[in-house]
Amino acid sequence: MREFELLKIVEELFGREDLEVPAGKHDSAFLRHGPEYLVFTCDTVNEVSDFPKFMKPEEFGKMAVAVTLSDLAGSGAKPLVFLSSISMKDADKELFRRIMQGIKEWADKFGVRVAGGDIDFSPILTIAGFAVGTAKRVMTRAGAKPGDKLFITDSPGKAQLCLEMLERGFKREDLPYAEKLYTPEPRIEEGLEIAKFANALTDISDSLSISAHLLSKESGVRVLIDPEKLDLSHLTEFVGREKALELFLYGGGDYELLFTAKDSEIGIEIGRIEDGSGVFFGKKSLEFRGYSHF
Amino acid sequence: MREFELLKIVEELFGREDLEVPAGKHDSAFLRHGPEYLVFTCDTVNEVSDFPKFMKPEEFGKMAVAVTLSDLAGSGAKPLVFLSSISMKDADKELFRRIMQGIKEWADKFGVRVAGGDIDFSPILTIAGFAVGTAKRVMTRAGAKPGDKLFITDSPGKAQLCLEMLERGFKREDLPYAEKLYTPEPRIEEGLEIAKFANALTDISDSLSISAHLLSKESGVRVLIDPEKLDLSHLTEFVGREKALELFLYGGGDYELLFTAKDSEIGIEIGRIEDGSGVFFGKKSLEFRGYSHF
Repeated sequence: MREFELLKIVEELFGREDLEVPAGKHDSAFLRHGPEYLVFTCDTVNEVSDFPKFMKPEEFGKMAVAVTLSDLAGSGAKPLVFLSSISMKDADKELFRRIMQGIKEWADKFGVRVAGGDIDFSPILTIAGFAVGTAKRVMTRAGAKPGDKLFITDSPGKAQLCLEMLERGFKREDLPYAEKLYTPEPRIEEGLEIAKFANALTDISDSLSISAHLLSKESGVRVLIDPEKLDLSHLTEFVGREKALELFLYGGGDYELLFTAKDSEIGIEIGRIEDGSGVFFGKKSLEFRGYSHF
Repeated sequence: MREFELLKIVEELFGREDLEVPAGKHDSAFLRHGPEYLVFTCDTVNEVSDFPKFMKPEEFGKMAVAVTLSDLAGSGAKPLVFLSSISMKDADKELFRRIMQGIKEWADKFGVRVAGGDIDFSPILTIAGFAVGTAKRVMTRAGAKPGDKLFITDSPGKAQLCLEMLERGFKREDLPYAEKLYTPEPRIEEGLEIAKFANALTDISDSLSISAHLLSKESGVRVLIDPEKLDLSHLTEFVGREKALELFLYGGGDYELLFTAKDSEIGIEIGRIEDGSGVFFGKKSLEFRGYSHF
């Protein structure tokens, strides 16, 4: 959670830059440019914090693309270019080629040009991803309105479930949702659709709880997650109901989208927006926690 | 030099992306966007390879901005936004604030908005910088024409001289060009002016030799550096003539611009462009070497 303390410094120093949406306020920054907006974001993955056991080098590259483009998806933006800065232990050509091949495959799949790369040296394999997109409107986690319904593109907790199964000794081939952990997909198409009608939008990278709290704060509303509406069957197949709920609310790494709208044909309804503040799970206040660096 | 082998892989995989100037061909990538071009680049600095002894945290931030914007300067582009992804040992708030203050100061000085930051964990303090600019024309190291004169914005070797003096035990306050080493300035204004008339342009981050070789290769011309034209007095004040020449040709970290034009009122003339290939220092072929990661 200490990351959020550092983000306060970012907001304090850069919150008044000449941008429509400055740094620290959303997944991405927005700048008006001609008839539309340019949308900017960066995200970093490294082998210590982000690469699960049994992950292949191609998947390091795919993950770098996915986490960065997920910020654009959570801004309703269309990806334009992706760049990466990679820090490697040494100049291992084969490893480098495989990582770049993964970047190429995921960039092609999600329609973004790879516009550059920088190579540096570090004892920890790290890939910093940068992406630029375009958007017709400013779409952020501010803007949710009392009366809106709350939606997610898919039920979260799958990536965290798999991660914890790995820790308990399961092999990759035994994981029920291995693709969510090893080859996450940014919800680009969904984000573009949602931006046409939603009032607030963000991605869920750390946890549903954290994203809901940030949305509540930026929109100045109360977020109510309705226990009656949650379908935990994708998790209760493998763990008890209490653990399933824990994974659903606090698990990270799913890269789904959380959004509010009067109504939606996309996504799963999990709650609603009311006057007030804070995030509630039924009648109880929901803890601000989830996966975070540090 | 192994970095250049890895860059071949980048060119091979991403050299045919839908961009006016793709990755690996120049300091930056160019994409036509409306009536102009968007220009993208990234560059990384870390405490092992890039931060000299006695450097202050604010200067880490300034350097991250300078090296990244220098790529835009070497593309004749006007900076639009800067983003950084910082990897820290731990969530040291004071260190983080000082680095961000340096970023803020240098971003303001060179007229670029700071549009975001990502924070990650790593045993080596690393700052990956990413910048987007705009340009009216494509300005790269391709385009030098036989008959052009060769110019640099200022005589190189100063940063490397200081670095080697530090290694020999000198203190920061004894260095003759400490500002070149600790607070390098990207040649943004000069780059914008030069782009109005030059045929080829690039920055000199690794060494004059490396930049001249890349320019020769991309332009398909012979680059002749004229020993008679070189003024080494800024270096011979402190070292012998042979060492001074070594620093001038192969020293890194000055972030000056190298360009070719029919003529120029900006910069120092150091040679000319001829039909042919390769880089020559007088009658001798010039070695491809200089500062490089790895």
